[in-house]
Amino acid sequence: MLNCDILISAEVIVTQNANRDILYQAALAVTGGTIAALGQRVDLEKEYQPKRVLKLGKSLLMPGLVNAHTHMPMTVMRGKADDLPLMDWLNGHIFPLERRLDPHIIQVGTELACAEMLRTGATAFCDMYLNESTIYRTADRIGLKALVGEGIFNFPTLGCENPADALPLARSRAEELRGNPRIRYSIAPHAVYTTTPELLAACAGLARELELPLQIHLAETRSETEQCLKLYGIRPLELACRAGILGPDTTIAHGVDLTEEEMDLLAESATVVAHNPRSNMKLASGAAPIARMLEKGVPLGLGTDGAASNNTLNMFAEMSACALLHKHVGQESTALPAQSVLDMATLGGARALHRPELGSLGIGGPADLTALDLASPNLLPLYSPVSHLVYAASGHEVILTMVDGNILYENGKFNSIDYPALLREVAEINVFMQKQN
Amino acid sequence: MLNCDILISAEVIVTQNANRDILYQAALAVTGGTIAALGQRVDLEKEYQPKRVLKLGKSLLMPGLVNAHTHMPMTVMRGKADDLPLMDWLNGHIFPLERRLDPHIIQVGTELACAEMLRTGATAFCDMYLNESTIYRTADRIGLKALVGEGIFNFPTLGCENPADALPLARSRAEELRGNPRIRYSIAPHAVYTTTPELLAACAGLARELELPLQIHLAETRSETEQCLKLYGIRPLELACRAGILGPDTTIAHGVDLTEEEMDLLAESATVVAHNPRSNMKLASGAAPIARMLEKGVPLGLGTDGAASNNTLNMFAEMSACALLHKHVGQESTALPAQSVLDMATLGGARALHRPELGSLGIGGPADLTALDLASPNLLPLYSPVSHLVYAASGHEVILTMVDGNILYENGKFNSIDYPALLREVAEINVFMQKQN
Repeated sequence: MLNCDILISAEVIVTQNANRDILYQAALAVTGGTIAALGQRVDLEKEYQPKRVLKLGKSLLMPGLVNAHTHMPMTVMRGKADDLPLMDWLNGHIFPLERRLDPHIIQVGTELACAEMLRTGATAFCDMYLNESTIYRTADRIGLKALVGEGIFNFPTLGCENPADALPLARSRAEELRGNPRIRYSIAPHAVYTTTPELLAACAGLARELELPLQIHLAETRSETEQCLKLYGIRPLELACRAGILGPDTTIAHGVDLTEEEMDLLAESATVVAHNPRSNMKLASGAAPIARMLEKGVPLGLGTDGAASNNTLNMFAEMSACALLHKHVGQESTALPAQSVLDMATLGGARALHRPELGSLGIGGPADLTALDLASPNLLPLYSPVSHLVYAASGHEVILTMVDGNILYENGKFNSIDYPALLREVAEINVFMQKQN
Repeated sequence: MLNCDILISAEVIVTQNANRDILYQAALAVTGGTIAALGQRVDLEKEYQPKRVLKLGKSLLMPGLVNAHTHMPMTVMRGKADDLPLMDWLNGHIFPLERRLDPHIIQVGTELACAEMLRTGATAFCDMYLNESTIYRTADRIGLKALVGEGIFNFPTLGCENPADALPLARSRAEELRGNPRIRYSIAPHAVYTTTPELLAACAGLARELELPLQIHLAETRSETEQCLKLYGIRPLELACRAGILGPDTTIAHGVDLTEEEMDLLAESATVVAHNPRSNMKLASGAAPIARMLEKGVPLGLGTDGAASNNTLNMFAEMSACALLHKHVGQESTALPAQSVLDMATLGGARALHRPELGSLGIGGPADLTALDLASPNLLPLYSPVSHLVYAASGHEVILTMVDGNILYENGKFNSIDYPALLREVAEINVFMQKQN
């Protein structure tokens, strides 16, 4: 008999491996945070002597979902301003509220975001915001994986008072995180309209020098394109390309307003696009040409964006919106089939975080996984597990979420978050934010 | 002190009354299935001596949602066929599967649909299908409210072997249900492309004679319009109008392919439209012009359609899809604000079922309600309850669903469904259906 830390059995395991194998009456052995074995339950029960047995019964085990684009602390603004014209929403509500944030609020907002993501099966995320060190220290303490970056702007922000300090700050944050097994730093220029071509080029240079990924909001709206054309005479993607930003280590959020040539450029440069369908729909930003990018081979992740424009960080809701939106947009019911959407939320997310070990379950890979209760009425009967994950699951069927073999959420309980204390802290922030604006 | 059966307290009560009042630290007294009082918790606790106290704590109480269009037993086909061209999906999968249905499968599928709707806060629905008597007897036994109708076709079906018997059958079903407090019958011609103008006129006549509502699928796709033009030289709505179908007692499902004049006609005739955004998106049928119909004053309900084209009967998912789709379609972030969408899922549903007493909480009205856990991370903090219901809730935060004062679902338990037995029956059907097709 072999030893292992945990032996988990489930009715179905969706591996998301290269063959997209789906195992029935299956089990998975975890040792030291890594998947030691994966196979038929009867076989693994004979082979392994586990320290802990986790019989999940009528449930589905799958890789933890990867949220390819978010702004964690924006949970504190959830539902504070909806159904407004974009500029009024931003200038009249979000920006003034952001000026009221402090490290405590950012920490609490991040804890809440971690709770929500663990509750709905996400184990990793890509984040860009202000005061990012508070965010990644909080997420690291709770135990999620992340690619993070302090947003770089050419004006003072909450996280960096002097724009000239932005790159040195990024350098020191990257140094702090070097060797961290869960959190990795990225250089994160906010967007073309909040930086300059020179600053973008400097960001690209620093990312290359430090061998770090780069993330940026790009081609989110038609008005971004128009403004860029007016200021620089070229479109945002061309500007980013000239600044040396595109490439396999870069993730662009949104990619809505793109031409055929720009999509070809993304495919050729293997730049990753993080698609945010719910946020794009809610803000009426347009629909990213995802079906076309899928055909062209652009690497695609899926993200929730922040909770101020979604208003949830639930990757199951995002998968469903992604599949439905692109069938509607293309007027083609075969567009974005369930498997392609699940791929975006798992393997595509791994591309967006530049961590190929994420997004699938395989021997030697990290035990980053989640399990759903298959006895929930909306998941019955079961013909196609992948269909259910994309079209029928709400995300709240999740009964277990684990990162590196550590159970972070199980049956209503958060093991690395003091949830009652978090509720009290959120209640205080609720009162404070209610008074603003 | 006044007596009452149940005194329910909650942090928030969203009434959906004429003023759209939202009460905080509130309570609701139920007597004989009816709301006896509604107000501040401290006041009601002084006034009432309840047989049972239900302290829901950090939760939100609201009217039970009304699903304005569904086909209950199609739950048994959930996820059996997705991502296919429409005609292949229908002719190659759904129709052959439907020929395999029998009263037992229809009963089990209906029980499953009832479980899913109660689990996600719906207390009433509008259904049209085959073998409808099995459906309404099952729903009645479980305790939901419904407007139901055996689908009327001009060819033999599972529920009616001889088309000539369709109207006499409707007459006898209506007779069976006369006086039923929860279930009401409707005349339900399936669509213009599955009937004839003469049959439609006869249906309209029977509905008038028996003073029953009428429901029909109408203007669902562009191809329906083209086929109708080819056969009759007029568009579906004109055909329905000439057959005498339009009017305040009629609910049309879909209403996607409509002209400005047709929308005016719907508004003038006060015909109710049941909008099914997720199904329309999944089947790439187009987007119903909901924002425009809202402006014109067309009565609008919201429905899930059947689980074969959704694939869930979750009205929270439907609300979110509705708000997001129409912001996208109109490229206008102010379109379909949260309150309008919640209105569609409650008061609009009451219009679609032709039961004005549904869809709101008020003194003297039925105690048809549901409650959500506000400690769920995705519902924190709380600035706008209505925003959370539409944009942030998954539906699985529901902790209580009640119809006429009877608790049908509470904290994972179904009181009028033997859920373990249902799981076993669904498992058998799962095996049987897996072999088909």
